[in-house]
Amino acid sequence: MLDVIAPLVVENATKIVLLSLDGLGGLPRPETGRSELETARLPHLDALAARGACGLIRHVAPGITPGSGPGHLGLFGYDPLFYQVGRGVLEALGIEFELRPGDVAARGNFCTVDDRGLITDRRAGRIGTDLCIRLTDRLREIRVPGVELFVEPVKEHRFVLVLRGGGLSGALSETDPQATGKPPLPVRALNAEARATAEIVNSFVSQARRVLANEAPANMILLRGFDQLPDLPRFPDVFHLRAAAVAAYPMYRGLARLVGMEILKTGAGFADEIVTLRQHWDSYDFFFLHYKDTDKAGEDGDFDAKIAALERLDAFIPEILTQKPDVMVVTGDHATPSILAGHGWQPVPVVLASRYSGADPVSAFNERACAAGTLGVMPAQHLMPLVLANALRLNKFGA
Amino acid sequence: MLDVIAPLVVENATKIVLLSLDGLGGLPRPETGRSELETARLPHLDALAARGACGLIRHVAPGITPGSGPGHLGLFGYDPLFYQVGRGVLEALGIEFELRPGDVAARGNFCTVDDRGLITDRRAGRIGTDLCIRLTDRLREIRVPGVELFVEPVKEHRFVLVLRGGGLSGALSETDPQATGKPPLPVRALNAEARATAEIVNSFVSQARRVLANEAPANMILLRGFDQLPDLPRFPDVFHLRAAAVAAYPMYRGLARLVGMEILKTGAGFADEIVTLRQHWDSYDFFFLHYKDTDKAGEDGDFDAKIAALERLDAFIPEILTQKPDVMVVTGDHATPSILAGHGWQPVPVVLASRYSGADPVSAFNERACAAGTLGVMPAQHLMPLVLANALRLNKFGA
Repeated sequence: MLDVIAPLVVENATKIVLLSLDGLGGLPRPETGRSELETARLPHLDALAARGACGLIRHVAPGITPGSGPGHLGLFGYDPLFYQVGRGVLEALGIEFELRPGDVAARGNFCTVDDRGLITDRRAGRIGTDLCIRLTDRLREIRVPGVELFVEPVKEHRFVLVLRGGGLSGALSETDPQATGKPPLPVRALNAEARATAEIVNSFVSQARRVLANEAPANMILLRGFDQLPDLPRFPDVFHLRAAAVAAYPMYRGLARLVGMEILKTGAGFADEIVTLRQHWDSYDFFFLHYKDTDKAGEDGDFDAKIAALERLDAFIPEILTQKPDVMVVTGDHATPSILAGHGWQPVPVVLASRYSGADPVSAFNERACAAGTLGVMPAQHLMPLVLANALRLNKFGA
Repeated sequence: MLDVIAPLVVENATKIVLLSLDGLGGLPRPETGRSELETARLPHLDALAARGACGLIRHVAPGITPGSGPGHLGLFGYDPLFYQVGRGVLEALGIEFELRPGDVAARGNFCTVDDRGLITDRRAGRIGTDLCIRLTDRLREIRVPGVELFVEPVKEHRFVLVLRGGGLSGALSETDPQATGKPPLPVRALNAEARATAEIVNSFVSQARRVLANEAPANMILLRGFDQLPDLPRFPDVFHLRAAAVAAYPMYRGLARLVGMEILKTGAGFADEIVTLRQHWDSYDFFFLHYKDTDKAGEDGDFDAKIAALERLDAFIPEILTQKPDVMVVTGDHATPSILAGHGWQPVPVVLASRYSGADPVSAFNERACAAGTLGVMPAQHLMPLVLANALRLNKFGA
């Protein structure tokens, strides 16, 4: 689809705001039969729904629960089934490690092995982040000829391994056998080009075993999700948009950087993001704004906290609208229903308001109401063309 | 899509019921403006619609009327445009002939030819099934070196021819010229590998002409739909489900066997199917239940009989629900509108009820109401991933 869209794009002076409420969608609380969105008081989002076109966004495919990576790639216009990003790369993006083309990134876990080398705990009892930092410092002492190694702590037992050098490949099997009572597996090359990289990783792992031998409980490592930066078309080039990301959390800055958006420095809260938006309003055509609290509350399984997070966000909507964006979109990267306490597969409400969006019968911003909207149930990657059209930035297809 | 789904599947103790109401969807009766589903009293299906998520299933593509084969393959999770099954194979499945990999099956018609060998009736006046059985007995006398032949009566003028042996191919043209006044066509090989098979079939046909020469009106045969068993991924392997089919009609048992489900012995009526379901409840994770009466009434063009079939079925819903399935799905393999007296291309209502399905504004199980459901208009092969998600049997896609 990007090949169809790109030649149609024209530039103009319109402004677009794409507000992603992380983990937006929910499910009814069994006691009331109403979802978080249906329970919250959201006068400004409801007003936006009343004057805009509404629908539901499906990020990957029916029944598929999107991670944050595929969820946002879809919103940015990329079919997440076509543009797949490995877990190692996502993990590196999540700590804003500046991956370069050709780097191979893997997700690492510290784990516990017994005397015979068999895994007894795949997460080493979820060691604290302090210990993770100390242990990754030790792993940084490891040297393998012909490659530069980076070992970066993430959180608890998780770290990122990055290999930098010529001729590397991410086509590698994982060392995690996904079960206790088994030894970590050696890395295998999945094709001929990956053989040298497999040897490098196996050398790293055997050195890591020696370095960690006297530690407890984190006396070994597991590696998975080897991958390189995908070759994504750049968002500013495809859509001819000066695009900026305003996101307090590193993962979302990383995802925006992956597609070539500029990352604006901002503070830790959404109020800071709004300030940042105002400050840079004249310099960009497109703003990706990210709000995290909805997802956090959903992940915690805290229905009331998610309602509160939605209501706090709703109060910010007028401040965004005072900038008078030509196209204002509010949606999310995936559902995080509180009753699931995790990401969900449910399609997520979307409202798109512009002079040309048309209105529909929907006047409440929630799952059930948006199901009756004129946008229907829409694959996420179809949103950006619709946004551009509403910004009058797309020429006719065919004469 | 199956390649995306399969690595995400996890196992747990949930139970799933997929109830297929054959030919479920209908069209409004011109006198009342209400369809069969809209006219019938369906308190239990309506209650299920009220607590579950609803939508419409499109089995192949807009405007395409599905046969029972593609209709059910879609419900089982297989894209029916990608996994095509030849008519000969479907006909063999319909009589529960135990096709083996490599067998070539064709649908046969007895027909009538005149003195010059030109077809005067492509169905030999729809001879009775008794005569069909007697004539297939005679065709069984035919021998062709190097191949084992099976000739099985179906109904009226229809039979199945199966070739068994090494190196056979189904890439053969049909002998039916689809018109009277023309002679039956010789079979041509559609590629080099099929040449030997074409010779075998042509030898069978010329012998059949001699064997039937003195019969009237069924003095010749026509063969079409040559095909071999498709190489389908096995349903229990792809979805990690212990899957059982409960179906009174052989065609539907055959389709379930085609994808590797276990076929449970059951009686001739739907009440028997419910008993079978109860008896085997603990031994399987997934039950495919099939109800035929809706299709039969639709095929007969009998609007009132279809209403009655729907109301009879509705009364069984509580009996299924007493088993407390974690995911309960009711839909159909295609529409059979009574005013068409045949299969239709219209999308078919679906309701999916689980703890995590969410509810939508839909509280009636019919075509018009379900169009406003949160499932939208959904390709049939997307149903199984959604079912697995609702059973919490699918991991997240991407980190």
